[in-house]
Amino acid sequence: MRKLALRIRYCGTAYHGWQRQEKDITVQEVLERALAITCEEPIRVVGCGRTDAGVHAERYCVSFDSNTKIPLDRLPIALNTRLPDDIVVEAAVEAPDDFNAILSCIKKEYTYQIRNSRIRDPFTAPFSYFYPKPLDHERMARGAAAFVGTHDFSAVRSVGTQTKTTVRTVHHFEVERVGEMIRLRVCANGFLYNMARAMVGTLLYVSEGKIAPEEIPALLEKGNRRLTGPTVPPQGLALTRLWYDGVVGQMMDN
Amino acid sequence: MRKLALRIRYCGTAYHGWQRQEKDITVQEVLERALAITCEEPIRVVGCGRTDAGVHAERYCVSFDSNTKIPLDRLPIALNTRLPDDIVVEAAVEAPDDFNAILSCIKKEYTYQIRNSRIRDPFTAPFSYFYPKPLDHERMARGAAAFVGTHDFSAVRSVGTQTKTTVRTVHHFEVERVGEMIRLRVCANGFLYNMARAMVGTLLYVSEGKIAPEEIPALLEKGNRRLTGPTVPPQGLALTRLWYDGVVGQMMDN
Repeated sequence: MRKLALRIRYCGTAYHGWQRQEKDITVQEVLERALAITCEEPIRVVGCGRTDAGVHAERYCVSFDSNTKIPLDRLPIALNTRLPDDIVVEAAVEAPDDFNAILSCIKKEYTYQIRNSRIRDPFTAPFSYFYPKPLDHERMARGAAAFVGTHDFSAVRSVGTQTKTTVRTVHHFEVERVGEMIRLRVCANGFLYNMARAMVGTLLYVSEGKIAPEEIPALLEKGNRRLTGPTVPPQGLALTRLWYDGVVGQMMDN
Repeated sequence: MRKLALRIRYCGTAYHGWQRQEKDITVQEVLERALAITCEEPIRVVGCGRTDAGVHAERYCVSFDSNTKIPLDRLPIALNTRLPDDIVVEAAVEAPDDFNAILSCIKKEYTYQIRNSRIRDPFTAPFSYFYPKPLDHERMARGAAAFVGTHDFSAVRSVGTQTKTTVRTVHHFEVERVGEMIRLRVCANGFLYNMARAMVGTLLYVSEGKIAPEEIPALLEKGNRRLTGPTVPPQGLALTRLWYDGVVGQMMDN
């Protein structure tokens, strides 16, 4: 039995998120089906985290145990012939026995894209949130910087999943404008449920003057979800980077 | 009654091409429905050309007659509220009485995208043809140059639509590689049915050494479709530029 890790990439538009469900089609289910055929045994994978319906992953990591004898450099190609166009396996590596895609993850980066233009764009619509009112990305960047550090993030999470603590560390949170697209990149040691999207919604309030960047520490202190901004729609969100130690870390950064 | 022209943009993935059909959903039908509600009268539009199922348009032009009193700068916004995310009206202009989106069109440019990488990419899959074998884009560019000029293009068309003549003038045909994407841009005064996709397929044969760039003039001379390359899949193709005189030309180039 070997412990294997895969680097995958998926467009989430057609899926009800990462995690297996009773009724609806998810990325995990489609991947596990391709793995079962390819490895000729039932496979259950551990993903690096849940992503919601419509959320994308430019980088995603899964781990699993398998007896397969397929060489690691052949495995992605073999899997891709059995996967639809919107899910791709990019690399495979043999990981230490105690590796676990979620528990071994050191930190993650999400990127949220806002299409800030007067007119919609049909080609980027599945990957961005269309927001026609002009946004002040420099003011948003000041607000984003206020989230950096170790805080209780209860004020920007949705209740619904269990967690031991609501304290997380945000390592960086940057806002840049490239033409009509505003990109928000946020890296943390972990994200509470809807935390990335609630922080982005709060930065929309910051742009509109409903919240001042300097107020954010006090809002985090209060921990009241009703005082921060809305949870922005899922299609603008993508998991864009993952940090691990060792061989998996090397694979994820290639 | 005014003659109006619109600049539109659409992602063709969900449609059975531009032109209205009995059974299947098309871009024309969806646009005409939005126009009928917005202008409060039945509208029939003339499109600048047919695009096949799955083909995209970064630039597309339609013309129609209407009694609507809606100011032209309001018309795109009013229409977009009634259109799905994958079809967008970008501009509207009042055109001369004799303007006709297809008959007044001077020339058109199509761009074909080939994703030439070992591994698929889920995000560009709906907009490109995945071709894992390494391609020689410089050799393809030499082949593309051989199509430029006024020729009978019967050797690179599918039979199926009536046309007075199969002679067309290709003004430019360029091939460039940007990272793992090969982009082929071809401009002509008109395109026969499947002509752009059959020329691209022929350039794949050129890259593979099945056809030499120097043989292309003789292949056009012979006019035998079975001697040229395959018709490549539709999702890589997009209409990217249109040339008109006067106010419509100005609108299309903005």
